[in-house]
Amino acid sequence: MIGFVMKKNAIYAQSGGVTAVINASAAGVINACRDYAHQIGTLYAGENGILGILTEDLIDTTHESRELIDGLRHTPSGAFGSCRYKLKSLEQNRREYERLIEIFSAYDIGYFFYNGGNDSADTCLKVSQLAKEMGYPIHAIHIPKTIDNDLVITDNCPGFGSVAKYVATSIREAGYDLESMYKTSTKVFILEVMGRNAGWIAAACGVASTHDGEPPHIILFPEVPFDEDKFIDAVKLAVDRHGFCVIAVSEGVKDKNGVELSASQTNVDDFGHQQLGGVAPILAGIIKKRLGLKYHWAVADYLQRSARHIASASDVEQAYVCGYRGVEFALQGQNAVMASIKRVSQEPYLWDIESVDLAKVANHEKFMPNDFISNDGFHITQKCRDYILPLITGEDYPPFKNGLPEYIRLKKHKVQKKLPVFEVTR
Amino acid sequence: MIGFVMKKNAIYAQSGGVTAVINASAAGVINACRDYAHQIGTLYAGENGILGILTEDLIDTTHESRELIDGLRHTPSGAFGSCRYKLKSLEQNRREYERLIEIFSAYDIGYFFYNGGNDSADTCLKVSQLAKEMGYPIHAIHIPKTIDNDLVITDNCPGFGSVAKYVATSIREAGYDLESMYKTSTKVFILEVMGRNAGWIAAACGVASTHDGEPPHIILFPEVPFDEDKFIDAVKLAVDRHGFCVIAVSEGVKDKNGVELSASQTNVDDFGHQQLGGVAPILAGIIKKRLGLKYHWAVADYLQRSARHIASASDVEQAYVCGYRGVEFALQGQNAVMASIKRVSQEPYLWDIESVDLAKVANHEKFMPNDFISNDGFHITQKCRDYILPLITGEDYPPFKNGLPEYIRLKKHKVQKKLPVFEVTR
Repeated sequence: MIGFVMKKNAIYAQSGGVTAVINASAAGVINACRDYAHQIGTLYAGENGILGILTEDLIDTTHESRELIDGLRHTPSGAFGSCRYKLKSLEQNRREYERLIEIFSAYDIGYFFYNGGNDSADTCLKVSQLAKEMGYPIHAIHIPKTIDNDLVITDNCPGFGSVAKYVATSIREAGYDLESMYKTSTKVFILEVMGRNAGWIAAACGVASTHDGEPPHIILFPEVPFDEDKFIDAVKLAVDRHGFCVIAVSEGVKDKNGVELSASQTNVDDFGHQQLGGVAPILAGIIKKRLGLKYHWAVADYLQRSARHIASASDVEQAYVCGYRGVEFALQGQNAVMASIKRVSQEPYLWDIESVDLAKVANHEKFMPNDFISNDGFHITQKCRDYILPLITGEDYPPFKNGLPEYIRLKKHKVQKKLPVFEVTR
Repeated sequence: MIGFVMKKNAIYAQSGGVTAVINASAAGVINACRDYAHQIGTLYAGENGILGILTEDLIDTTHESRELIDGLRHTPSGAFGSCRYKLKSLEQNRREYERLIEIFSAYDIGYFFYNGGNDSADTCLKVSQLAKEMGYPIHAIHIPKTIDNDLVITDNCPGFGSVAKYVATSIREAGYDLESMYKTSTKVFILEVMGRNAGWIAAACGVASTHDGEPPHIILFPEVPFDEDKFIDAVKLAVDRHGFCVIAVSEGVKDKNGVELSASQTNVDDFGHQQLGGVAPILAGIIKKRLGLKYHWAVADYLQRSARHIASASDVEQAYVCGYRGVEFALQGQNAVMASIKRVSQEPYLWDIESVDLAKVANHEKFMPNDFISNDGFHITQKCRDYILPLITGEDYPPFKNGLPEYIRLKKHKVQKKLPVFEVTR
């Protein structure tokens, strides 16, 4: 049952760090809006996320061909542009929220689809709150996206399954490399993966190890305070037992005082996050000093979150369906909800999308549960493995041309501005 | 016409840094030996390369099933074990060469297949020379392998095409990432790739750029002395023009005095090579200091050479056929030759395998020709693009199980030793 009599327009924006599958969510939103064209008018997109909405830099998605929308499903990055821009609280920056409502009103927007992680869940909630306060009718729907997998009340977050598949594949491959070379060459290999506060991506490396002794041998989580002596003992033990040691480390691994090993106070982004990176060489230095072993290290950085060539089919599908169902939730009259993934059964892995109250999601962070981390703090448990495996299942290769994945670029037809210029104060 | 009346045994060894496709060459050698079983007896393999031959740690490949041999074709790393161990000159360490002949004699070896890069080409040649001097009949065949693509008198080196496909795919994906985020976030991304002296892998990143302005914007080759001011100007120009700048850098990039930017004198491997790595953060530091731009960097390290999941079909096939044809060259009575790839035509890309004199290959290094590097020294030319593209063509995905590539491990049935112990002096 649809609550609206009048056909309203919709707007979509991508937020925060991009992933291999956020464009699949975009494709889901666009296709749903087209399928429900009798209820939804034009779907606009903010160019470069919420900033483009504030500055009235809007894209009319009507001009994107069916072929390009299909291409979105297999193209990494944020095709409409994303941004790291967190709206402040209503008290601190009410004018930005009011500007959003001004834009919504000018473009007859009835549906707001915001595709992002924790920060955008919070923004989406606030937009719906202010709209209510101002008497503007909006259906604000959050489409989850984050490689960090740290949103609560969802089985997982679109984007995580693909980065998980990438890091697990990569560390398995590097493990084979070391296994064949360690007799005369590298004894320790360290792969640094993303994850500031939650160790989900590092945990995903662990599924590459299907039997005792198979790499990775050690995983360092942000949730487990780094203890140098215990770590060195574990490296030594692995080298003694297997001849070599493969280590996965979260960029956000912290010492017992909660200070990141790689903390760099000088680089802080707009969300107030420090720019990390480089804990792998720090660990390598410790190993060299304490054990004198030959090491190599890799920092996957953006490669991991953009690796659409090795995306998880399960992740791509969930990202798409979250977008599509998000539109349906809006048409059902829902507001201030997130399209959440529910694990219906474990074996076979079955899932459904349900709507959950954004107030329960925003500003919460899901960390690795204690029973997902082994007793020694250096690996994952079977329970964690069972949780992650279905999320990396299936391959969904992009088309290739001349040896390279063929990703698309949208036309991004800009809408003629009609409102006064708005200065974004940063 | 086969010169031998008696059926002789054969021995195979893997050498140096492993690749995504060296096992495909092993599969080619094994299958050829099996196909020519009326002329070749047992095929042994040295465990961990030439070291295993010296210490009589031999694997009888007869025990490997057809299924495992097929699995070799899609498994990265060196399945028999490889080593970084360069035999010294005949004058400096004659006893090692004599030991090899002793092993050959004890196991009735008539064919020696050595699978490696420059150093192993040299060893293979010396083995054939000493055998001749000692009157021992051997057919020593070099099967090329090196991601560095620096062997001469071959169109390319098995291993290169796959690393090229990996780095070009990865930098394209990271380029899309930056393109969607640069407005409010990272402006500069640096991908460090392997390549000590030859810039082939860095050059391969260049094929991801199919039109002017498409990432990568800057490539730093070891062949082009690093000029900080020119580099900073180029970064600034790219950011001014495109809003962001994607950089590919060879680990071995050198200053005008020929000193590696990332040189670390304390880590030197057995081949006398310095252990490099970490030029990306050095460049990031320069950019931050001079331009104050937000950056990210990745170091692919072993991930690039073991990334069998994104191997080039062309590379896998060439690696396999080099192994197979190498055996045929031996059976034709050839000695001290390399199975070399000849480009027969460019479009369509057609190739053949021919034997080339090892004396012309050993101790030579193929650098990027001047006309493969753009005039400003920061990119590749169309000629280079035309050379590399056929080498990354085609996908050859490994089988997947539970979301991860299913790589094999051989049985590695060890042969009972029968000779006196040999001490390897390192």
